[in-house]
Amino acid sequence: MSDKKPVVGILMGSDSDYDIMVESAKILKQFEIPFEMIVSSAHRTPERTLKYVRSARDRGIKILIAGAGAAAHLAGVVAAETMLPVIAVPIDATSMRGLDALLAMVQMPAGIPVATMAIGLAGSRNAGIFAARMLATADPELEKKLLQFKQDMAVGVVKKSDRVQEKMADDGLI
Amino acid sequence: MSDKKPVVGILMGSDSDYDIMVESAKILKQFEIPFEMIVSSAHRTPERTLKYVRSARDRGIKILIAGAGAAAHLAGVVAAETMLPVIAVPIDATSMRGLDALLAMVQMPAGIPVATMAIGLAGSRNAGIFAARMLATADPELEKKLLQFKQDMAVGVVKKSDRVQEKMADDGLI
Amino acid sequence: MSDKKPVVGILMGSDSDYDIMVESAKILKQFEIPFEMIVSSAHRTPERTLKYVRSARDRGIKILIAGAGAAAHLAGVVAAETMLPVIAVPIDATSMRGLDALLAMVQMPAGIPVATMAIGLAGSRNAGIFAARMLATADPELEKKLLQFKQDMAVGVVKKSDRVQEKMADDGLI
Amino acid sequence: MSDKKPVVGILMGSDSDYDIMVESAKILKQFEIPFEMIVSSAHRTPERTLKYVRSARDRGIKILIAGAGAAAHLAGVVAAETMLPVIAVPIDATSMRGLDALLAMVQMPAGIPVATMAIGLAGSRNAGIFAARMLATADPELEKKLLQFKQDMAVGVVKKSDRVQEKMADDGLI
Amino acid sequence: MSDKKPVVGILMGSDSDYDIMVESAKILKQFEIPFEMIVSSAHRTPERTLKYVRSARDRGIKILIAGAGAAAHLAGVVAAETMLPVIAVPIDATSMRGLDALLAMVQMPAGIPVATMAIGLAGSRNAGIFAARMLATADPELEKKLLQFKQDMAVGVVKKSDRVQEKMADDGLI
Amino acid sequence: MSDKKPVVGILMGSDSDYDIMVESAKILKQFEIPFEMIVSSAHRTPERTLKYVRSARDRGIKILIAGAGAAAHLAGVVAAETMLPVIAVPIDATSMRGLDALLAMVQMPAGIPVATMAIGLAGSRNAGIFAARMLATADPELEKKLLQFKQDMAVGVVKKSDRVQEKMADDGLI
Amino acid sequence: MSDKKPVVGILMGSDSDYDIMVESAKILKQFEIPFEMIVSSAHRTPERTLKYVRSARDRGIKILIAGAGAAAHLAGVVAAETMLPVIAVPIDATSMRGLDALLAMVQMPAGIPVATMAIGLAGSRNAGIFAARMLATADPELEKKLLQFKQDMAVGVVKKSDRVQEKMADDGLI
Amino acid sequence: MSDKKPVVGILMGSDSDYDIMVESAKILKQFEIPFEMIVSSAHRTPERTLKYVRSARDRGIKILIAGAGAAAHLAGVVAAETMLPVIAVPIDATSMRGLDALLAMVQMPAGIPVATMAIGLAGSRNAGIFAARMLATADPELEKKLLQFKQDMAVGVVKKSDRVQEKMADDGLI
Repeated sequence: MSDKKPVVGILMGSDSDYDIMVESAKILKQFEIPFEMIVSSAHRTPERTLKYVRSARDRGIKILIAGAGAAAHLAGVVAAETMLPVIAVPIDATSMRGLDALLAMVQMPAGIPVATMAIGLAGSRNAGIFAARMLATADPELEKKLLQFKQDMAVGVVKKSDRVQEKMADDGLI
Repeated sequence: MSDKKPVVGILMGSDSDYDIMVESAKILKQFEIPFEMIVSSAHRTPERTLKYVRSARDRGIKILIAGAGAAAHLAGVVAAETMLPVIAVPIDATSMRGLDALLAMVQMPAGIPVATMAIGLAGSRNAGIFAARMLATADPELEKKLLQFKQDMAVGVVKKSDRVQEKMADDGLI
Repeated sequence: MSDKKPVVGILMGSDSDYDIMVESAKILKQFEIPFEMIVSSAHRTPERTLKYVRSARDRGIKILIAGAGAAAHLAGVVAAETMLPVIAVPIDATSMRGLDALLAMVQMPAGIPVATMAIGLAGSRNAGIFAARMLATADPELEKKLLQFKQDMAVGVVKKSDRVQEKMADDGLI
Repeated sequence: MSDKKPVVGILMGSDSDYDIMVESAKILKQFEIPFEMIVSSAHRTPERTLKYVRSARDRGIKILIAGAGAAAHLAGVVAAETMLPVIAVPIDATSMRGLDALLAMVQMPAGIPVATMAIGLAGSRNAGIFAARMLATADPELEKKLLQFKQDMAVGVVKKSDRVQEKMADDGLI
Repeated sequence: MSDKKPVVGILMGSDSDYDIMVESAKILKQFEIPFEMIVSSAHRTPERTLKYVRSARDRGIKILIAGAGAAAHLAGVVAAETMLPVIAVPIDATSMRGLDALLAMVQMPAGIPVATMAIGLAGSRNAGIFAARMLATADPELEKKLLQFKQDMAVGVVKKSDRVQEKMADDGLI
Repeated sequence: MSDKKPVVGILMGSDSDYDIMVESAKILKQFEIPFEMIVSSAHRTPERTLKYVRSARDRGIKILIAGAGAAAHLAGVVAAETMLPVIAVPIDATSMRGLDALLAMVQMPAGIPVATMAIGLAGSRNAGIFAARMLATADPELEKKLLQFKQDMAVGVVKKSDRVQEKMADDGLI
Repeated sequence: MSDKKPVVGILMGSDSDYDIMVESAKILKQFEIPFEMIVSSAHRTPERTLKYVRSARDRGIKILIAGAGAAAHLAGVVAAETMLPVIAVPIDATSMRGLDALLAMVQMPAGIPVATMAIGLAGSRNAGIFAARMLATADPELEKKLLQFKQDMAVGVVKKSDRVQEKMADDGLI
Repeated sequence: MSDKKPVVGILMGSDSDYDIMVESAKILKQFEIPFEMIVSSAHRTPERTLKYVRSARDRGIKILIAGAGAAAHLAGVVAAETMLPVIAVPIDATSMRGLDALLAMVQMPAGIPVATMAIGLAGSRNAGIFAARMLATADPELEKKLLQFKQDMAVGVVKKSDRVQEKMADDGLI
């Protein structure tokens, strides 16, 4: 990954979001999609954010992923400064359990779209997979990896079902 | 109002917010506080918004009011670009009935405060009154007007109570 | 549009969703992106849906947009049957005002991503724009159109601001 | 149970749902209703799910129970592929505390019913009891067991009330 | 229908619920399932409700459907007095838009299950269909009708899709 | 009613609440319980409110009913100034549909109870009935009227059920 | 308390509600109001509940308090069977955090009032205090105790404020 | 701070709110803004609260901050008794996770504004910063400190981003 120019840029509003956003990174690494990941806030470092976003396209970035909690403006602010597709990951960071971040991301007004994923870990993983799906429309090798990934998930479900049979036996149910 | 330099700047994300945000303006006019009011969007015109906000203080603006609906980032984006106090008015513009705008405004992360008012008309009027209260801490004349305003409200309540007695009589209840 | 092979497929769960989903179509037409639009339900015509989705890629479709209300499974069911990126538009079709559709779309479990837009009209328009952004990463002409579209929006905001000045004059506020 | 053909099929979207869904199984075992329980996901293994559901009726299954969390499409997808009655158990698996699963299950559009139970453990137990009630309409022995079950619950309440009297005495309240 | 003993009993808390609950009745009539429908309130006529429920089974009723709004206790109260399966239809009758009725119905504690359908019209129709599905497990003729009903729905979706093509042509989109 | 000293005092925050709060008054009149009704706001006329509340007990008032919308502080403020029982009626006066008023009334901290009724009309009527129930514990005549009132409701339900039979016949369902 | 006939009856739906409902009991004991407390469920022991409620008035009970969680029907079912005033305490017993119990209690339809308190401990304490306020309207001694209770609370607040000064000193803030 | 007359008064409804409200105090201290902090309840000590608020202005207080949980009336009650600007901090003190306090504060009716911050810690810190912003409009030294504070935050974000790079290296992602 290190010697290839990143095509996905991951932003998070705070380093406390790392444990969630690293899941996007892991997925991208798994699919061998070069990426970079930085902390930049819509509110605390608006200029840093703008500067990063405005230079992204010319540095070869094709997709941006933004994770944030609370009044999560990061994805919207990023989407307003670029023509690149922006994926949003709402993070459960307040007593509102991520509902605040979800609505602040998904309810974008007409004109500036933000592709919102689920709150938290599942959303972060899916942000990586969605980026892979986008890139795969022009990359048959990546598409194959996605198909393999899907097949592996299906195999995993069957294994989990076998484990459930064992648990049922342990619990005297079968 | 026209010949005095504005001290309050009102921003709204769309001209469809006018009917709500004009209530702030009416209150400011009633208190003879010079103001200006423009449409500028956090997402559709980020540069216009930044330019307006960055020049506001040096043009004599002391308070900013931002009204927006949906994923209402306007107030937060404004507050990130100025040291002036920013008042937010969430607007009911989607099927979420303003809950989206409320959470996107009030749940600002630590560091960048936004003073959020009620959703809609009441919030817009209160944004104007809150601006007046801020300015009144250094303006005894304005403070007197606020006291008179409060007294008038109290008188209004008594009149409304009289009207209720009449209605009760009409309804055969007394 | 008619003589080009569609690259975006729009699905809606019911023809009562037409008035919302046509906004995606209008945006795609505006950007000269060939598309097709059908009614197919996750629940009432599961086989029709699967058949459509499974053949989509080989017919040249690169992006799928799915709009649905209530327990809106359409986007998730579609995303489970293809490696193409799927955009979801939650529709306000019940007394829950689209919150049911939003959560049924955005809260997809890890593994099967769905890119969720805002509830209703804004979301449908943004689904079209997001599709355009995706395609623009490999299409400089389309990217230019998106930039023009953004500039037009910005000009529109300035015009709306002018109109607000007129309204304020009419209302005796300036 | 092992030597009788199962009449109830329990599906869960993930083996992490086992601790909830095993409560359905325990109830069925208690009422001596033969059942089977597998993991199958609407999204990760759509074909496995369809295959299971389509064969269920001919293998003698009369009732299906589906437990899932997040954007819980499992019950709806199952109900779309069979004429058998489908019971849904929403599971608290995200920061939305099961509200997402509840709405994704209960808000099914007209035509494809899903009988939704409470979120979590109570719902899982009730799914088992509801299955028993359905079967009991044609099985007087089972109906008797249900009446006994109800009587036992009533006795249990009286015992709990006695325990409360002891606690009150311990707390010096009586 | 009149000369057959009813097998489904429909209760509604108030005659203002008629327009919703009649949809259950229409479905049952369509499937030629004999039914009866009465108004009885959990709170205003508790004795009438108990008397009705307690006699239902011996009069040949196999399934009860209860529709109610607000703090909708009807289904739970009914389910506590019978071993018959009880289907609940939450009705949007207050400013809470049916969320109150939904939670008051679906969140039944362990021991007394209530099979909850969607809020309002869709839920009422589905209550009828779910009753038909239950009865069809022992009635191959009814099962055939359900399959036909499903096929008709599928055909209806295709027709709706055709209509959408016409609308698109009218709108100049194709 | 006019020549008897009122025993119930009804307060409302604004005369726009009259149409809701008059329902409490009608119930009290129906039960021949003398009452008075005024407009007084917790925020606009705090002194008027305190003065009214503090004098209420000595003028013979035994129960206070407070109806308010939005951030409905009236009932709590009243309950803090008297030892009389206070009944609260949350009113749907904002885009939050009365949820704001409900939570602002019902979630009173330990020490200062407020007896909250349903949002809106039903709550207002029930406030009157609850006042009657309180007074009836020391007034056998009033208790008889309440029993008659309950019986009349039950009769009304039976009549409504008859009307439903007629409607069913009209609709060709029986 | 033991040798006086109880005037308040406390019901709870399950002994797991004891830790919440004992707070009502402690308050009543503190005010020397004789009470009794039992477990009885609207659903698991409907007959026990009815029997208890119907006999309550003739045994001298003047007020009923009902605490329950989930689809909390207990208070409504009780209020339908007596003319006594019924106080409801919603309990946080599910993943819905008491919102289900709150709506199932407070949203009672017109005709059958239930006086709802806050969710959980605060609500349980306030149920006891509200009962005391009701009884105090006819009991000057009890009214004095309530006034003393209020004064003690006020003194407690001042003490807490002193403690806060100490904490501020400890934290180097003053 | 000790030898200067306080210009900000912080009120909290209970000493259990100290851990949240001390964050406002710390911010004020950091900006060398003299303040005082007391416990006073809208409900338990209404007179203490009124007395404090009414004397605040004449003692030199320019801004009031009120933190409270549950049915959080404190800020509204305070704002009704003074012309000073009042900032509200909703506190997560019940099972409603601060939503009750938020709505009870932010939804103030027109006429009596309350400037609401985020729920909990972030809101408390922002209350202090917002007070500083208000005072800075007339205090260039304070404005400079705010600018420095903002710059420090920005530097902090860059450092956090560096730390994220280290974590990524540790996790084998770069």
